[in-house]
Amino acid sequence: MISVVLLGAGNVGTHLYRVFIKAKNVNLVQWYNRSLDHIYAYQNSVDITDNLNDLVVADVYIIAVSDDSIAQLSKQLPFKDRLVAHTSGSLHFRHMGQNNRRAVFYPLQTFSKHRDIDFSQVPICIESTNKSDLDLLANLAKALNCKSVIIDTEQRQVIHLAAVFANNFVNQLYRVAHEITDNKGVEFDILKPLILETALKVQEMSPFIAQTGPAKRNDKKTIKRHLKLIENQHHEAIYQLLTESIKKTHGIK
Amino acid sequence: MISVVLLGAGNVGTHLYRVFIKAKNVNLVQWYNRSLDHIYAYQNSVDITDNLNDLVVADVYIIAVSDDSIAQLSKQLPFKDRLVAHTSGSLHFRHMGQNNRRAVFYPLQTFSKHRDIDFSQVPICIESTNKSDLDLLANLAKALNCKSVIIDTEQRQVIHLAAVFANNFVNQLYRVAHEITDNKGVEFDILKPLILETALKVQEMSPFIAQTGPAKRNDKKTIKRHLKLIENQHHEAIYQLLTESIKKTHGIK
Repeated sequence: MISVVLLGAGNVGTHLYRVFIKAKNVNLVQWYNRSLDHIYAYQNSVDITDNLNDLVVADVYIIAVSDDSIAQLSKQLPFKDRLVAHTSGSLHFRHMGQNNRRAVFYPLQTFSKHRDIDFSQVPICIESTNKSDLDLLANLAKALNCKSVIIDTEQRQVIHLAAVFANNFVNQLYRVAHEITDNKGVEFDILKPLILETALKVQEMSPFIAQTGPAKRNDKKTIKRHLKLIENQHHEAIYQLLTESIKKTHGIK
Repeated sequence: MISVVLLGAGNVGTHLYRVFIKAKNVNLVQWYNRSLDHIYAYQNSVDITDNLNDLVVADVYIIAVSDDSIAQLSKQLPFKDRLVAHTSGSLHFRHMGQNNRRAVFYPLQTFSKHRDIDFSQVPICIESTNKSDLDLLANLAKALNCKSVIIDTEQRQVIHLAAVFANNFVNQLYRVAHEITDNKGVEFDILKPLILETALKVQEMSPFIAQTGPAKRNDKKTIKRHLKLIENQHHEAIYQLLTESIKKTHGIK
C-alpha cells in the first residue's frame, strides 16, 4: 500500500484524486489545495486541508499545480527528505525545493474537468535520481493500472512538445474545420467519424503510411479549388503551410 | 433490392466493393476496372470486366475513380438515361457526361486499402436533381447501414475542404510529432493514447471547449522553451502559426 498526499485541485489534480481514491493499493491520506472551496465537497472521502503546516506523513507527495506555482509550493513544504514529485510535462525538477527528494510523475494525457478518463490508457512518465524512488513511482503507476516509462528531463520536454502538436494543434485544426462548416450551415457533426478514424488509423500504422488527400497526391486542381473556397486569410495560411509540409514529407516538389 | 454496378478499384472502390457484396439489400451485379489485375481475385464473387461495352443494366452505376478520370469515364458510358453517381468530395456533377442522370454518392471517410472500416459510421453525402434518384441513393446508403445527408455541391466542397483540415492536416501533425519524438529516441507509441483521447473528446464537446495547453493559457515561458527545443525550421513555422491561431480563437493578444 502506497500512501499519497495530493497537492492541487486543477484538471490534473482532480483526475488524480478520482483515480487515487479508487485504486486498491493506494491510500490517499490527504488532499491539499490553497483554497478549500474546490475540494470542500470531497471532505467525507478524504482528509482535506489548505494549510501546508498540517500536511501528514506519506510515502509520496504529488504536486499537481500550474508550472509557475510548483517551485514556490515545493519550497514551502515544512519537512525534509521526503519524496515529492511534480506532474508537469515541461518543468525541470531542479526548479523544486531542495529539502526533499525531487521526482516527476507526469501523466501524458489531456484532462478536462467534465470528462472521465480511462486511466489505464494513460502512460506515466517517471523520473528520479534515486532508484528506490523510481521503483515507488513505478509501483504507484502500476496501482493505477497505468504503464510507466522512465524518461529523462530532455525526453520529457520533447514528449511535451510533441504532445502540443498531437493534441493542442490537432484540436485547433478541428476548430478550423468547425468554423469552415459553420460558415456554410453544415453541421460539424458530419466530420466526427472522420476525426475518430484519423486517430484510430495511426494506432496501427505510421502517420506517413496513413496519409491521403490532395497534398500527398499533388492534386493541384483540388488544392487550387480549396484555396479559392477559403474565405479566411488565417485558414489560408494554415492550408498553405500544412500542404507544403505534407509535400515535403512525401518528397513532392 | 438495389442493383449496382461499381466502377473503379482504388481505395474507395475496394471499400465499396466489400460493403456492397455484404449488404443484404444490394445486388452488386458487376465490377468494372480499366485493368483486370486489381479485381481478378474477386471474379468468383462478382462479375468483373474491363470493357465498358460489356456493362450490364443496373439501378445505379457508382463511379469510384480519381477526380481527374470521372469526367472521361462517365462520357464513355455506352448507354443513356441511367443513374450514374460519382463518389468525389470536390467534383461538381456537371463535369460528368450528360447522357445519363448524374448524381453524387460521397462517403465522408478516409480509406486505406489495408484497413477495414466500420461503414455504419460513415456519413454518405448524396446529391441529385431528381427526387426519385435521391430516394434511391438514400436507400442504397440505408442498405449499408449508413446515415445519408442531402448536400448540395457547394456544401459538399466545403465539407471536403474541412475534411482536409480534420484529416490530412491532422495526420501531418501526427507525422511532425513522430519526427520530433524519433529525433530524440522516444517511441511515438507513447503519444497514441493522447491522440485517441483528443479525437474522442470532440465527439462530445466542441473543439473550442476541448482546447488546453500553453497557447490557450498564454503560457509564454513554455512557448519560449518549446521554440528553443525545436530543431527543424519547418516545425517551428507550424508551431508559430498554430499557436497564433489558438490565441486568436481564444481572444489572447
